[in-house]
Amino acid sequence: MTPAETDRIRSSFAAQSMMETFGADVIEIEKGLVRIACPILPGTRQQQGFGHAGLTFSIGDSAAGYAALTHLPLDQEVVTAEIKINLIAPARGQRLIATGKVVKPGKRLFVVTSEVHAEMDGTTTLIAVLQGTMVPVPA
Amino acid sequence: MTPAETDRIRSSFAAQSMMETFGADVIEIEKGLVRIACPILPGTRQQQGFGHAGLTFSIGDSAAGYAALTHLPLDQEVVTAEIKINLIAPARGQRLIATGKVVKPGKRLFVVTSEVHAEMDGTTTLIAVLQGTMVPVPA
Amino acid sequence: MTPAETDRIRSSFAAQSMMETFGADVIEIEKGLVRIACPILPGTRQQQGFGHAGLTFSIGDSAAGYAALTHLPLDQEVVTAEIKINLIAPARGQRLIATGKVVKPGKRLFVVTSEVHAEMDGTTTLIAVLQGTMVPVPA
Amino acid sequence: MTPAETDRIRSSFAAQSMMETFGADVIEIEKGLVRIACPILPGTRQQQGFGHAGLTFSIGDSAAGYAALTHLPLDQEVVTAEIKINLIAPARGQRLIATGKVVKPGKRLFVVTSEVHAEMDGTTTLIAVLQGTMVPVPA
Repeated sequence: MTPAETDRIRSSFAAQSMMETFGADVIEIEKGLVRIACPILPGTRQQQGFGHAGLTFSIGDSAAGYAALTHLPLDQEVVTAEIKINLIAPARGQRLIATGKVVKPGKRLFVVTSEVHAEMDGTTTLIAVLQGTMVPVPA
Repeated sequence: MTPAETDRIRSSFAAQSMMETFGADVIEIEKGLVRIACPILPGTRQQQGFGHAGLTFSIGDSAAGYAALTHLPLDQEVVTAEIKINLIAPARGQRLIATGKVVKPGKRLFVVTSEVHAEMDGTTTLIAVLQGTMVPVPA
Repeated sequence: MTPAETDRIRSSFAAQSMMETFGADVIEIEKGLVRIACPILPGTRQQQGFGHAGLTFSIGDSAAGYAALTHLPLDQEVVTAEIKINLIAPARGQRLIATGKVVKPGKRLFVVTSEVHAEMDGTTTLIAVLQGTMVPVPA
Repeated sequence: MTPAETDRIRSSFAAQSMMETFGADVIEIEKGLVRIACPILPGTRQQQGFGHAGLTFSIGDSAAGYAALTHLPLDQEVVTAEIKINLIAPARGQRLIATGKVVKPGKRLFVVTSEVHAEMDGTTTLIAVLQGTMVPVPA
């Protein structure tokens, strides 16, 4: 990854106000893989006090989308066509980490996956897996 | 729906801090159908300024979950086992409305769907459809 | 639908040897909706003697794909990018009927759904719902 | 895996007439992983002569289900609650191989994945990935 390639991911991410609301950060970018972390804030919880499924989904989806973007020229963006999430365990702990990966790049469609882990007191638990389709579009 | 039945949905919803962060409201509850509305706030956007997919997902998933809850006794809750979203159009406009419905209730599993529309200047556009599985659990 | 438009769906269907193996037929074609029926043959069952999930999937997916094709010019085909099936009840009875519908047509992608019903002794039961993405390609 | 544990998978598989129609075989069983292979027969093709998506789905789904079954006591079966398939490439070649794996076992639900590869003239290509939910039920 060139600096221009990682920069455009960081700029795109910074332009998502939702990610700022969530306190999320891009913590790793390599070709075909992007990792996003975020705290479980007081304002992003479900009714039992755990992280909201929408939080898990949001960073899982974003990590997968940016993983696809690592394969694309600078004049392209990606949008999510569809994505499916299986929720495995409650989002319990201090921090969530989503790891998005490209399963198959393509000119018209990318198949992607994402795993989301929760960190609680030093223990890491897989809480969700996602599988979806990203579509390259002109930036 | 008895007042106790709609109340427990409103209480559960009120206990989700994420829904407060999103400014979301339950605007309709009937047996097998729940409707949730929310504005597209400055803090819930993606990089192009439209509503974030995580916003669309969150209210779509919640509407479907509460639709399942309308079928359950007061001592049960539901959790999302899995759900899939197809994103159809950008979340453009002033307000999103998610309509969750029960396709098939069950003792162990509910199959649910949700549609999310965006309202812009009086025009309503379908922006996403969801299909998923809810699991009844003790409250 | 013109005769040329329904003919190309019937020809494409007839060219699928799997549909012949299943004894499946196209029983209805209108703009945005295709219905396929098939018996539950001795050779298409799962271990308990009900119709195999692969049978339910195959006709559900095909009905959705051909529903998309009703929107496309004669020089295009569709392929399934992805599709998700929720299985609701066993495929019990004499005959399955899949009804595919277009939720949203598009130049690059179609969002589609399908419902599969089983007929047993005159009673019809919803056994599966599908939601997916079809991609137009040159024929 | 004890012989009794692998036997019950082989017996269940043998009881699926669809798998016989497809000429499919279980070629590997270990805890949490099952592999199924099948030829692309003249009678299991789509309109362009490649293996039918229903064939890919059927062995992908079965491999994932039996992978879940490797975790369960002998008096239990599994059924597919839902599963999603992303089709990546045409099923071109002589033989398909599906590898099902357990992502997360559970008392009520298993999260599973499956990959399907096509073998053509000694080359192996990933043609589909599946992600789904299996439910343990009394045998």
